[in-house]
Amino acid sequence: MSTAVSPLAVPFPDMPPIEGVRFATAEAGIKYKNRLDVFLALFAEGTTVAGVFTKSKCPSAPVDWCRDSLKGGTARALLVNSGNANAFTGKKGRETTGLQGELAAKVAGCRPDEVFLASTGVIGEPLDAQKFAAVLPDAAARAADGPWVDAARAIMTTDTFPKGSTRKVKLGAATVTINGIAKGAGMIAPDMATMLSFVATDAAIAAPVLQALLSKGVVGSFNSVTVDSDTSTSDTLLLFATGKAAGAEVITDAADPRLADFARALDEVLLDLAIQVARDGEGARKLIEVRVEGAVSDASAKRIALSIANSPLVKTAAAGEDANWGRVVMAVGKAGEPADRDRLSISFGETRVAFEGERDPAYSEAVASAYMKNKEIVVTAEIGLGEGRATVWTCDLTKEYVAINGDYRS
Amino acid sequence: MSTAVSPLAVPFPDMPPIEGVRFATAEAGIKYKNRLDVFLALFAEGTTVAGVFTKSKCPSAPVDWCRDSLKGGTARALLVNSGNANAFTGKKGRETTGLQGELAAKVAGCRPDEVFLASTGVIGEPLDAQKFAAVLPDAAARAADGPWVDAARAIMTTDTFPKGSTRKVKLGAATVTINGIAKGAGMIAPDMATMLSFVATDAAIAAPVLQALLSKGVVGSFNSVTVDSDTSTSDTLLLFATGKAAGAEVITDAADPRLADFARALDEVLLDLAIQVARDGEGARKLIEVRVEGAVSDASAKRIALSIANSPLVKTAAAGEDANWGRVVMAVGKAGEPADRDRLSISFGETRVAFEGERDPAYSEAVASAYMKNKEIVVTAEIGLGEGRATVWTCDLTKEYVAINGDYRS
Repeated sequence: MSTAVSPLAVPFPDMPPIEGVRFATAEAGIKYKNRLDVFLALFAEGTTVAGVFTKSKCPSAPVDWCRDSLKGGTARALLVNSGNANAFTGKKGRETTGLQGELAAKVAGCRPDEVFLASTGVIGEPLDAQKFAAVLPDAAARAADGPWVDAARAIMTTDTFPKGSTRKVKLGAATVTINGIAKGAGMIAPDMATMLSFVATDAAIAAPVLQALLSKGVVGSFNSVTVDSDTSTSDTLLLFATGKAAGAEVITDAADPRLADFARALDEVLLDLAIQVARDGEGARKLIEVRVEGAVSDASAKRIALSIANSPLVKTAAAGEDANWGRVVMAVGKAGEPADRDRLSISFGETRVAFEGERDPAYSEAVASAYMKNKEIVVTAEIGLGEGRATVWTCDLTKEYVAINGDYRS
Repeated sequence: MSTAVSPLAVPFPDMPPIEGVRFATAEAGIKYKNRLDVFLALFAEGTTVAGVFTKSKCPSAPVDWCRDSLKGGTARALLVNSGNANAFTGKKGRETTGLQGELAAKVAGCRPDEVFLASTGVIGEPLDAQKFAAVLPDAAARAADGPWVDAARAIMTTDTFPKGSTRKVKLGAATVTINGIAKGAGMIAPDMATMLSFVATDAAIAAPVLQALLSKGVVGSFNSVTVDSDTSTSDTLLLFATGKAAGAEVITDAADPRLADFARALDEVLLDLAIQVARDGEGARKLIEVRVEGAVSDASAKRIALSIANSPLVKTAAAGEDANWGRVVMAVGKAGEPADRDRLSISFGETRVAFEGERDPAYSEAVASAYMKNKEIVVTAEIGLGEGRATVWTCDLTKEYVAINGDYRS
């Protein structure tokens, strides 16, 4: 497996502490010795929580656990591990999450239903909860308010760079911070596009309002990113709000106008993280932004955009730096959405290559091919039927993707 | 581009002549010089025809042409070219098919609406109909009743071996022959799974009956094969019946009991060709048969089977000879169909690896891994909810797929 950092990597931002959030990492030897594989976060009393999960019909035991814990709306601890997904582990898997919940509750001084769990790694292997017993008391004792890059690194598996995003924004009288981290890097497709992502803020927001913000925010971010069309059994995105910012007043109504700037900042954090995941798609060498305009509806535009973004032939053409717009036509055509060949136009970057069902009269293979050498490529399909639009992000499909995924488990 | 023959290739069968079918190939220099790129078939008067085409919303001009010609129900000529798909060529594309129809009608001595056309190759480049004018009279003069392997070779593009299938069967008092040829090899997904495929018989069957047989026959064959989930703008499957078998009586009723054996033989030819297409998927090293049983319906089983067969993570695991059944769980889960994690069982070949939501108690990594070294792999998912079943075929996803599709056009 390649250990080279993705050529599309971006630097980890300078992330400030969040009042009410402390965390630590540990080596529990879950799959490998001498590797960070546990992340524990502790939240101040009164922290609210929201979550979005994989739509898989075969979700992991931790996903089931989180869905249950979410009903209470409060969180005091988050326990994450890599090396074992605790997925497709049957009754034993549920026993493991129960034990994990008790162990984390003990060190956090809370009830088990205030504990949230996420696991990533191999499917179908029993996960031994006792491994957490050996490391959690010490981790809790060491928990500190930074550095966040350590948290981002602790949850990485095949990721080649840590992913973080941060914003500061006014919310009522208070200035609040939003920090998020994420891991990818394959098996990334809506819905959920993630993997694991955890976002925390010191804003004071009631759980139902937090959930509304998160559910809305994922539509244009994590649910608009695809690496390979595959969806994990374990995808988990959690948002925690400690309410500890100086001067924070609790927001209890999703329609509260004071939320507008906060919602925008949250959306930015989610989109930033989601695009970083695409930048670190397994074997990725190019970031591809697919814009669809003029579809009959936004939903139709999104289905067409995903058909383009998930097409192996479009993605291999990008890997080969080939301005093969015929494959974009193919992908529009196979989406099953209303489209009219004779109104369809396609651009690579600013260069229109096809116009109203034919090669553009001004088409230059040289110009189009030169554009494909960029690391970031924008493909626009103008359907010509309505006002629907959508943007999704993906990466190219390279031999390295095949290499990484042909030997990951062995 | 690799020129090595697929390790999954099968020998071309011994295909007898079909009374009423003559054909020839030619070099028209459509894209390259000194390459066979035109195939012309001529059919006896009274030949009936049926067709199934891509469901793409952006079909090629020849697909539009065939859909129109089918309305008449009779065929006298088939003109196929490689090197240029005449797709996304706008008004010029329609002019080209019109000219092709006239040119072929002239050499066949028929009306243009008795001509069928198929083109494969690059999308978006105008196709010059005059190139056909230069070769068709000579091709028609040379037309003969064999060898069929030449026909199969003439329609190949990135295929590594010619694909044919033949059956002889009693139909009423007559013994009739069914011959079929096909080309793949990428951009193969339902519906249509093809590419180009042409089947001919000397049976005497009215056009509506022929269409019913073909539409039924593709469901379990071409529409159950996927290479990469991509669907071409040009997929075309045509079935011609000359009625020239000695003693043939015309069948005019789809419910005629004499049709049973013929229908079975036709289905065998279609399935044989479709599986050969999967065997020659671009870069394929393994043939994967995905069986889904116990789904809530056959349609649900097929969607689950396609989710498994199209999963890049399942296909790369197969390429890596990795018995990664967790990815099969993932693919079942993402299909969006009714499934219950705790009833799901998975087998590789005869080896059950997962049972009722957990790793099988008797699971042996060594046994499962040894099985994955086979060239032909059967993956069975038992959903445990009902009686629905489906089988689909695909191939593994290798670095060669990426290599072939990263430089095809340049």
